Amino acid sequence: MGVFHDEITIHTEGETDIVDITSDIQKTVNKSNLTEGIACIFISGSTGAITTIEYEPGLMRDLPRALEKIAPKNIHYDHHETWHDDNGHSHVRASLMGPSLTVPIRDGKVVHGTWQQIVFVELDTRPRTRNILVQIVGE
Amino acid sequence: MGVFHDEITIHTEGETDIVDITSDIQKTVNKSNLTEGIACIFISGSTGAITTIEYEPGLMRDLPRALEKIAPKNIHYDHHETWHDDNGHSHVRASLMGPSLTVPIRDGKVVHGTWQQIVFVELDTRPRTRNILVQIVGE
Amino acid sequence: MGVFHDEITIHTEGETDIVDITSDIQKTVNKSNLTEGIACIFISGSTGAITTIEYEPGLMRDLPRALEKIAPKNIHYDHHETWHDDNGHSHVRASLMGPSLTVPIRDGKVVHGTWQQIVFVELDTRPRTRNILVQIVGE
Repeated sequence: MGVFHDEITIHTEGETDIVDITSDIQKTVNKSNLTEGIACIFISGSTGAITTIEYEPGLMRDLPRALEKIAPKNIHYDHHETWHDDNGHSHVRASLMGPSLTVPIRDGKVVHGTWQQIVFVELDTRPRTRNILVQIVGE
Repeated sequence: MGVFHDEITIHTEGETDIVDITSDIQKTVNKSNLTEGIACIFISGSTGAITTIEYEPGLMRDLPRALEKIAPKNIHYDHHETWHDDNGHSHVRASLMGPSLTVPIRDGKVVHGTWQQIVFVELDTRPRTRNILVQIVGE
Repeated sequence: MGVFHDEITIHTEGETDIVDITSDIQKTVNKSNLTEGIACIFISGSTGAITTIEYEPGLMRDLPRALEKIAPKNIHYDHHETWHDDNGHSHVRASLMGPSLTVPIRDGKVVHGTWQQIVFVELDTRPRTRNILVQIVGE
């Protein structure tokens, strides 16, 4: 049994950019030499989320539209008064989606469906460099 | 310390069928002989979700109504143009809810409240056979 | 490798009270003597949620407003007919947000951003005493 950790660095193109990180996570698992266990994928920061989605162009527009419905960009947020900021909706969306995803590792592979990719969702209003943490516990 | 994995197979009755899998997960824990640790419950596929809910008939109708509000079935989804599919809302709901739940194992029991069950939520538009993965890390 | 568990007891002030539990979780990690691994933070009960947020006064009002949009308090819930209860929206919100958060532990520290705190969100309609479980697996 052991613990392995690594960081994936990505550059996002701004609001609701969705980045497929599945192969990066698989590379981390390969490096770990752990073949059975669980991986925790975590974004340190309060305006991004980790989830899974079928990574095809249509859903890359459909998910942002749903987020705009849940927490619209152009309504009042008290957060803007605290910091004279413009990303209250980004924070709210991130808290609702969650910063963390936990997935099984089996036979040295990150488990996911054929049409299911692990993604980082940029919820901030500008392009960002993001360090995504991968923490694996297993054997 | 060790890792144990198992799969739970269920048959769902179609859209927003909510299936209580708490006792199946407890059986997996029993088989594992692990008494302290964490269990990751994961659906491989992009149109289902794992969460907890009080498993009573009223909420089985209330949660679907809320999902219909968040990502309605009968609006346009670009996903439909990619695959000539009808389940764009299923994918969006699944990405928002998440495919994974992680719960503590203590004294050989899956921890949950008396009025809180672990459930699979079918978000696809038709009945499906689902293999839910349970990955336990502990001692 | 080992497993450590602990419970954090908090008193909430009622509906959508958001409580910063980051330092409590760090104390649990300190007690565990585990320095690398993952922590599962879990609320046993079906009307609360665990997530992360920038803990500043504006967002403490913005997140509740978004929840009111997603699952409004004053609409019909079938749950009320089951129990003659008033908290159908609490249950729906809790199922959507999720009862569990998994975070990495590195160098003896719970990983989180400077402007990102780990919080319990009270979704029930009254003040509650809540026992939050922290389960750490690591070395």
